Amino acid sequence: MSWVDGVDAGTVPVSDRGLLYGDGVFETMTCRDGAPRFFDLHWQRLALGCERLGFAAPDRGRVLAVLRHAAATQQAAPAVLKLIVTRGSATGRGYAPPAEPQPRRIIERYAWEDDRQAAAAGVLVQFASQSLADSPRLAGLKHLNRLEQVLARAELHGSPAREALMRGSDGRIVCGTASNLFLVRAGALLTPRVDRCGVAGVMRAVVLREAPLQGWSVREAEVMPCDLAGADELFLTNARIGIWPVVALGGWRTDSPGPVTLALQAHLDKLRE
Amino acid sequence: MSWVDGVDAGTVPVSDRGLLYGDGVFETMTCRDGAPRFFDLHWQRLALGCERLGFAAPDRGRVLAVLRHAAATQQAAPAVLKLIVTRGSATGRGYAPPAEPQPRRIIERYAWEDDRQAAAAGVLVQFASQSLADSPRLAGLKHLNRLEQVLARAELHGSPAREALMRGSDGRIVCGTASNLFLVRAGALLTPRVDRCGVAGVMRAVVLREAPLQGWSVREAEVMPCDLAGADELFLTNARIGIWPVVALGGWRTDSPGPVTLALQAHLDKLRE
Repeated sequence: MSWVDGVDAGTVPVSDRGLLYGDGVFETMTCRDGAPRFFDLHWQRLALGCERLGFAAPDRGRVLAVLRHAAATQQAAPAVLKLIVTRGSATGRGYAPPAEPQPRRIIERYAWEDDRQAAAAGVLVQFASQSLADSPRLAGLKHLNRLEQVLARAELHGSPAREALMRGSDGRIVCGTASNLFLVRAGALLTPRVDRCGVAGVMRAVVLREAPLQGWSVREAEVMPCDLAGADELFLTNARIGIWPVVALGGWRTDSPGPVTLALQAHLDKLRE
Repeated sequence: MSWVDGVDAGTVPVSDRGLLYGDGVFETMTCRDGAPRFFDLHWQRLALGCERLGFAAPDRGRVLAVLRHAAATQQAAPAVLKLIVTRGSATGRGYAPPAEPQPRRIIERYAWEDDRQAAAAGVLVQFASQSLADSPRLAGLKHLNRLEQVLARAELHGSPAREALMRGSDGRIVCGTASNLFLVRAGALLTPRVDRCGVAGVMRAVVLREAPLQGWSVREAEVMPCDLAGADELFLTNARIGIWPVVALGGWRTDSPGPVTLALQAHLDKLRE
């Protein structure tokens, strides 16, 4: 099911700049009790994305109303909601943004995917050969230019790995195609910076905010593949999956999810957002 | 006017991966005598793009038939035709490409834009502050991830410049937002490489092919802004505009289009492709 500018609709004009140029941003949210979880954080990133691309974000209240409506359909069964905001229709040919863009709001409702097994037992992760190009002005945003992620994700075809970890052009670890990585080392958390490329995930922001409150220090850092050797635990974050323990990545292996990962999972589950 | 998979239609499903991820490629063509000009070169690049993205290009004959139909509408008035080929609709949520994608063909017909003045008198060009990120696997292609070009083009708002010239992260010149640059120096032509980023334009390919036949040597090279000082002539190429003389770029200035530029313009005009 989908809604375009608040109206039940399944199509957009071929002139939409999201289609023509990837000129827009998106968020993928889960629902709880008929409302999108961590909506404030999703909205912050979306609004920042619109600002960086140079157009006004749509009205927050109107978007939230449609999201709540989407969450409530189909007997409010668990769902994943995707919100796309594009710069709207092109007013002519060419890259130049319209002087007065009318951003388009697209909301899609997807059935819930049951990944409890992955959350409990952990997942295999592999390095992607497709790297992420440095693009500081777009770094951290969840914009619609996602070919690098598509190509990296395609590398998993036929592999038991659930996620592909992407590196920058200098080999440093950045993030997964649809997740962020955390390392636990001697009780301290570490996650790669996403200021040159990569996405600043909402669940990553939640962990950065919550971990210190739970007694673990956490910082953003340059992380090279060789740094994995010193990690006691590894986990992935994403707004949909929450936290997935990593049980194998490159030469790094573990038998079972570690205590910090499990404690953080339990803590996040309890958050009323 | 637009056609989707050969049918007169103005919309695409919100599930199209072109919209979701910029997962596709495009070509912008002019028409002459009811057919797209330089179609073989456009098709070569489009097919290469599909191959690099990992899906089969649509049937060439079917695409060409719709392009001819589009060219012939509205009393075959001069038009610009845009062909977009996406990986088609998503079959689920997430970046993973469908195992059996059904690529979608979108053709849009635009009114001709009369740029004879620019072609005759030349244009002002300015450097964009937005740079192009190195992404060798996608370099040269005309894919749908075009945010860098959109941001660079937006910098021209309120400027008399007709094009923004983009540099790589190391400062080298790559290409314009929608054109390629050539330098003429002592009767020899030079154009920046596009093997790390940038688009390998169709009109650039035509000039690379035709210039030697007209007696000018031509080569691809690393071009830094300081190299402009030694240029006798500068011009831009693009399938729609053909050749635009540059009359100013950074500190480089000229009073009028140069003889090589004018001779190449005249030669390209005569090509029956």
